[in-house]
Amino acid sequence: MTTHVFDESIALERQADSSFAGNTHPAYANMVGPFGGTTAAQMLQAVLQHPELLGEPLSLTVNFCAGVADGPFVVVAKAARTNRSTQHWTMEMLQQGQVVTTATAVTALRRDTWADDEVAMPTVPRPAEVPVQSGRAPMEFVNRYEIRPIVGPMPSVWDGSLHSSLTQLWVRDQQPRPLDYASLAAMADIFYPRIFIRRHSMQPGGTVSITTYFHANAAQLVQTGAGYLLGQAQAHAFRNGFHDQTAQVWNEAGVLLASTHQVVYYKS
Amino acid sequence: MTTHVFDESIALERQADSSFAGNTHPAYANMVGPFGGTTAAQMLQAVLQHPELLGEPLSLTVNFCAGVADGPFVVVAKAARTNRSTQHWTMEMLQQGQVVTTATAVTALRRDTWADDEVAMPTVPRPAEVPVQSGRAPMEFVNRYEIRPIVGPMPSVWDGSLHSSLTQLWVRDQQPRPLDYASLAAMADIFYPRIFIRRHSMQPGGTVSITTYFHANAAQLVQTGAGYLLGQAQAHAFRNGFHDQTAQVWNEAGVLLASTHQVVYYKS
Repeated sequence: MTTHVFDESIALERQADSSFAGNTHPAYANMVGPFGGTTAAQMLQAVLQHPELLGEPLSLTVNFCAGVADGPFVVVAKAARTNRSTQHWTMEMLQQGQVVTTATAVTALRRDTWADDEVAMPTVPRPAEVPVQSGRAPMEFVNRYEIRPIVGPMPSVWDGSLHSSLTQLWVRDQQPRPLDYASLAAMADIFYPRIFIRRHSMQPGGTVSITTYFHANAAQLVQTGAGYLLGQAQAHAFRNGFHDQTAQVWNEAGVLLASTHQVVYYKS
Repeated sequence: MTTHVFDESIALERQADSSFAGNTHPAYANMVGPFGGTTAAQMLQAVLQHPELLGEPLSLTVNFCAGVADGPFVVVAKAARTNRSTQHWTMEMLQQGQVVTTATAVTALRRDTWADDEVAMPTVPRPAEVPVQSGRAPMEFVNRYEIRPIVGPMPSVWDGSLHSSLTQLWVRDQQPRPLDYASLAAMADIFYPRIFIRRHSMQPGGTVSITTYFHANAAQLVQTGAGYLLGQAQAHAFRNGFHDQTAQVWNEAGVLLASTHQVVYYKS
């Protein structure tokens, strides 16, 4: 039995001082440094492995303070407040003593209540009807995912023409792996900067801060298994070097697993 | 010249240990404790008053860890990382030595770039054509705002019937006050829990975590002045005692000032 490469990428070792030591993984490299989704998953993983953990992830905010360098890092996770059914976490990732990422998370004991998905999954072709994004991507992490773009793919012509920034795509781990909160946190960041799509402009850009709300309970993760996720992302506004992005992630059965939002830096 | 009651509510005094001391304000009381929007504004205000501040607010995440009690509090704000044009903040609000609120913020120097509002302000009647929400609200903070609900007002019949959770409303400070980042942070939380609207069910509920992305630059705040804001909010999913909410805030001229998201506790 071999370890899945995603599990390798989020592997953390608890240190004597209660911090967690990890390493960036070359399989999840981005243009410079690691894929932000993996960083988000590592921040969450420190909470999930923490001996004081109460419940399951409900929300996660990760702030990318500085470029994460390839190599070792330390994550410090602290339970700032533990209530009867919710717990509030603050996390920091450090490299060479400098803060490179900050985060907060809320975990919660889920209860059975009235439930309702108000926003239905959009009507799209099934995964088998949508071609896989072909070619080997220059960003290594992209090769770790099987992506089937429905609308708003990575442009092939960079002519500055204006388009809707809406992307819809099917995605799953390239090497099958049952979905869990860590991989859902990573896949919530699978969308390219909306400036690429909106403006057909290839330029420096990257996530500054991402927040993910986990709607999926443990049973829904099990039901999702290694199946496809439908991701949908769109921006509201581009201004002064930053744009937002709001996104939803459903499983094949149409259950909304997460809603996720981010603010993204772009150059010009 | 008298001080605006909102300025009173966010007034902080820097202490010898670099923390900020403040007090909840009875004018912004909620059913129990203070209006969360005021708490968010107080967390941001500690950053805005901090001598190390670089730039203007870009994003703010506030986690409500425990009920804030009426009375004094302390906010500790720390610049976790300062870059050339962005700065990352972590904040904690404490009462009697216990953490009641955590937060992170990103501030940034805004540059002139290509800009574009992709999502247009919805077509709605002008403020003068929409009646003011009448009657004195039991939650004192509601009386600090002039609210003109267009669709999805607070229900008058609580019969458990299903409705769209979409709310659109015009809002401004009851006592005119030029918009700034602190008051925008507060007004981003003006929407009632979506469970009230979706299900016409009055029950315990409240924000667990809110994230606001500030699209407005300083000039756009000045242009907005004391005018009305159009707020629009809707949920995606209700499950296991939590629902999300995604919202946008425009000024009367149709400029998107903020997009804001939250996850909300509900009882049943």
